[in-house]
Amino acid sequence: MTQTTIRRFVEHSWFQKFIVGLIILNSVLIGLETSPRYMNAFGFYIDQIDRIILFIFVLEMVLKLYAYGLGFFKSAWNLFDAIVILVSIIPSIGAAFAVLRALRILRTLRLLKNIPKLKIIIESLLHAIPSIGWIGVLLVIIFYIFAVIGTNLFGAGYPEYFGSLTDTFFTLFQIMTLESWSSSIARPIIDDLPFATVYFVIFILIATYTTLNIFIAIVVNTMNELHQKSLKEEEKHIKQFVHVEHEQLIEHMNTMQKELAEIKTLLKDQTKNSKQ
Amino acid sequence: MTQTTIRRFVEHSWFQKFIVGLIILNSVLIGLETSPRYMNAFGFYIDQIDRIILFIFVLEMVLKLYAYGLGFFKSAWNLFDAIVILVSIIPSIGAAFAVLRALRILRTLRLLKNIPKLKIIIESLLHAIPSIGWIGVLLVIIFYIFAVIGTNLFGAGYPEYFGSLTDTFFTLFQIMTLESWSSSIARPIIDDLPFATVYFVIFILIATYTTLNIFIAIVVNTMNELHQKSLKEEEKHIKQFVHVEHEQLIEHMNTMQKELAEIKTLLKDQTKNSKQ
Amino acid sequence: MTQTTIRRFVEHSWFQKFIVGLIILNSVLIGLETSPRYMNAFGFYIDQIDRIILFIFVLEMVLKLYAYGLGFFKSAWNLFDAIVILVSIIPSIGAAFAVLRALRILRTLRLLKNIPKLKIIIESLLHAIPSIGWIGVLLVIIFYIFAVIGTNLFGAGYPEYFGSLTDTFFTLFQIMTLESWSSSIARPIIDDLPFATVYFVIFILIATYTTLNIFIAIVVNTMNELHQKSLKEEEKHIKQFVHVEHEQLIEHMNTMQKELAEIKTLLKDQTKNSKQ
Amino acid sequence: MTQTTIRRFVEHSWFQKFIVGLIILNSVLIGLETSPRYMNAFGFYIDQIDRIILFIFVLEMVLKLYAYGLGFFKSAWNLFDAIVILVSIIPSIGAAFAVLRALRILRTLRLLKNIPKLKIIIESLLHAIPSIGWIGVLLVIIFYIFAVIGTNLFGAGYPEYFGSLTDTFFTLFQIMTLESWSSSIARPIIDDLPFATVYFVIFILIATYTTLNIFIAIVVNTMNELHQKSLKEEEKHIKQFVHVEHEQLIEHMNTMQKELAEIKTLLKDQTKNSKQ
Repeated sequence: MTQTTIRRFVEHSWFQKFIVGLIILNSVLIGLETSPRYMNAFGFYIDQIDRIILFIFVLEMVLKLYAYGLGFFKSAWNLFDAIVILVSIIPSIGAAFAVLRALRILRTLRLLKNIPKLKIIIESLLHAIPSIGWIGVLLVIIFYIFAVIGTNLFGAGYPEYFGSLTDTFFTLFQIMTLESWSSSIARPIIDDLPFATVYFVIFILIATYTTLNIFIAIVVNTMNELHQKSLKEEEKHIKQFVHVEHEQLIEHMNTMQKELAEIKTLLKDQTKNSKQ
Repeated sequence: MTQTTIRRFVEHSWFQKFIVGLIILNSVLIGLETSPRYMNAFGFYIDQIDRIILFIFVLEMVLKLYAYGLGFFKSAWNLFDAIVILVSIIPSIGAAFAVLRALRILRTLRLLKNIPKLKIIIESLLHAIPSIGWIGVLLVIIFYIFAVIGTNLFGAGYPEYFGSLTDTFFTLFQIMTLESWSSSIARPIIDDLPFATVYFVIFILIATYTTLNIFIAIVVNTMNELHQKSLKEEEKHIKQFVHVEHEQLIEHMNTMQKELAEIKTLLKDQTKNSKQ
Repeated sequence: MTQTTIRRFVEHSWFQKFIVGLIILNSVLIGLETSPRYMNAFGFYIDQIDRIILFIFVLEMVLKLYAYGLGFFKSAWNLFDAIVILVSIIPSIGAAFAVLRALRILRTLRLLKNIPKLKIIIESLLHAIPSIGWIGVLLVIIFYIFAVIGTNLFGAGYPEYFGSLTDTFFTLFQIMTLESWSSSIARPIIDDLPFATVYFVIFILIATYTTLNIFIAIVVNTMNELHQKSLKEEEKHIKQFVHVEHEQLIEHMNTMQKELAEIKTLLKDQTKNSKQ
Repeated sequence: MTQTTIRRFVEHSWFQKFIVGLIILNSVLIGLETSPRYMNAFGFYIDQIDRIILFIFVLEMVLKLYAYGLGFFKSAWNLFDAIVILVSIIPSIGAAFAVLRALRILRTLRLLKNIPKLKIIIESLLHAIPSIGWIGVLLVIIFYIFAVIGTNLFGAGYPEYFGSLTDTFFTLFQIMTLESWSSSIARPIIDDLPFATVYFVIFILIATYTTLNIFIAIVVNTMNELHQKSLKEEEKHIKQFVHVEHEQLIEHMNTMQKELAEIKTLLKDQTKNSKQ
């Protein structure tokens, strides 16, 4: 078969709907596997169907590679799709990777690429990220500073929360989500070291204010883009309207200029005649 | 009585105020029933009044059905009203449905239809939902993936939180609300399985970021609609203003063109005269 | 002294600064009273100063009443001020109202009226409330419905949280703030009654979505007002600009019309002359 | 060396990149010091490198002071930089200030000044603060009033949370973050003193509403500034467009006026001629 035939085949809306259907079926089956009751009853069939679906996914990938060649990987979405399928094959190789079986559910992520509406939303969610990139860097710096201070000051006394840099990072993340920050973390420490109040209160104020600004940055950017677009639109409309009105004036003027030219000709003729 | 008379009756503002009054009275009485003290003292009367009010509600429905025929159900609000009343009748049938008695309070929901201001708010709240529909689907996919992974990885060790898919769904919902996510769920698990940190932190980041975007979508959409409207308004005003100014110019031009025409006639007459 | 003299006196910026100073001093003293150490050392003096300040506040009120008459109470702020002072006098009457002594700190609220910047902020905070009024009513209805259902279903089994309507109201408020909603309230109940999951999840979804919309309503309203204002501004500027340009055109046209008139006169004269 | 040479040197992009590199290296080393394992193995080297880096920082400061003189301190950023370096030197003086060693990590803050993108973000974060200044004052007043009331009412019974004004301030801060406000603070108190419900619910409503308005103030201000800017832009574009169109009309008119002038001249010549 020619590349074109296969390309037409894999791009056909029925083929795409079939793949979406398979992804959903596959996701549901992997979900069912979490229930021992279903596994005991239908485990064998679920496993077989899972193998078949994986085979079809691999086949789909092979077909697309044949149809588009390496150009297929130019789209980040295709690369994502291919990686998800590859990761899914690993658990099938052997029982040694039992824990990795859990990763098979990542196949569900293929929905994000294969359902256009979801693709748009994912793209708009990712689109907002660069605008918050440097606030993210700032947040990392803040976390790092407080992590080092926290580990130094409380590490010896409270190893559970501040034992090492990684422990403290996790603790600071928990504090930023405001979960049990006072009742289980801050109060016991403050009872011993009253000055710790400053550490916790300042961290919460700075961290929440910075996070808040990530959020504000997204709202303001999104609003502003839409806003600019509709202002541009309005500007265009007003300009068009002004232009049309203007054209009408120009037309009038042209008529008048023609009139003037005629009058001048008449006058000149007259003068010529009278001179004769 | 003719349909028109009844229609005029049920649409009369006094009738509607009477119904709103009854709904409020009914709601208060059902609230009083939760207090054993009141039930012992006035239980019998409360019950009787409740029956009477339900009878009036059913009568109201019958009158409206007679007045409007099946066209009555064309409005989603009327359908909602009818369902609420029907559900309310069930507990009255027998003591067997004792638990269902609690559902009688749903009659209070009739206020949403019968107080215009509330109706508008409900409609605006529902109006925002389609714009967030697909982010909702995305959130369900995210939940599903993390639920399957969580159940596979932690199901055996922590059956309370991750025993089955439904348990994990509830746990993930709790984690998304950030309630005790670390102190009672994540920390005990991470003590055993340090890599679980990745699972919890990534879930929180993705889930809160996505939820945040639901919120942003609503704000931005609402703002944008209002914004478009006021821009359209402004555009119209400017166009009108430009047009009026323009008309004035056109008028001037017309006068000038008339002048020119007169001049031309004068000239032509002159030429004709001079030739004679 | 005449009313005018007193009015000039109480409106003088020095007098107002003096009152603001007294309010702050008074607030600090009442704060110091919470410390037994200070009370033992300076309790007598603190008490005396407090009496003097209260006396000055009452005097201020009397002066203002004399200066403005009953018109003084036309401003809601003055009424607020008067009530705060009156409430402050109660604890001074006798030791019987010891608990009410705590209310003396409400005098600090007088700052809200007497510092202009704070007055503006309070007014803008209150200004936003009507726009959220009916969503507030909706929230009350939602709370009421869930409170009645909750008390009926869980009242017998979990009297601590759902024992009576008021208990349930408080519990629902706690759930809405997402505090320990799952770990201490929902999970123990769900272990007994699995269907309770529906109750808690639906309540959280509806309550947070509605609260969210209160917030959105404020943002959108505030933005929209500012937006309308700056659009009006822009509209005015563009109109003015167009008008000035237009005036210039009109001027040109007038010159041309004068020219045309002259030409016509010239022509007519010519014709008349040639006829003669 | 002349001031100009040194100025050129410290402003050179390579020098600035070198400093940023040193800051990052220094931060990583200070982070490593929290790990006993690394300290045992490389403690000596880490310490030496730390001294060298601090020496370079001091040298940098001296060079800049020489290059710019006291004008160097006119920029708040330079002042910030100098203070951070000075604070960093303290722990190097002696072991007596062991706790202060933790403050060395504040050197990482120098990144905020030396990476331009971060500098912009910090400036925009600080830029938003004045607009929220007076709401902040309001929040302090609210906290103070509730702190005094809380200490008076619950101080004797619950010294852990309300023992002194400072304890109560911290407790109110915790309540404002909604952390365990009900399960560990409010419920035990309300069991004894039911009227305490009013205190907690009102504080949460007022505090969250006010905080919310801080947030709204930032969003609305930022949006409004951007908005004003793009409206000004649009206004300028429309005006320019109208002006260009207008110029075209003026040109036409000028041509016509020239024509009219010519016609008049022709006519006058004619009249003169005919009179002769």
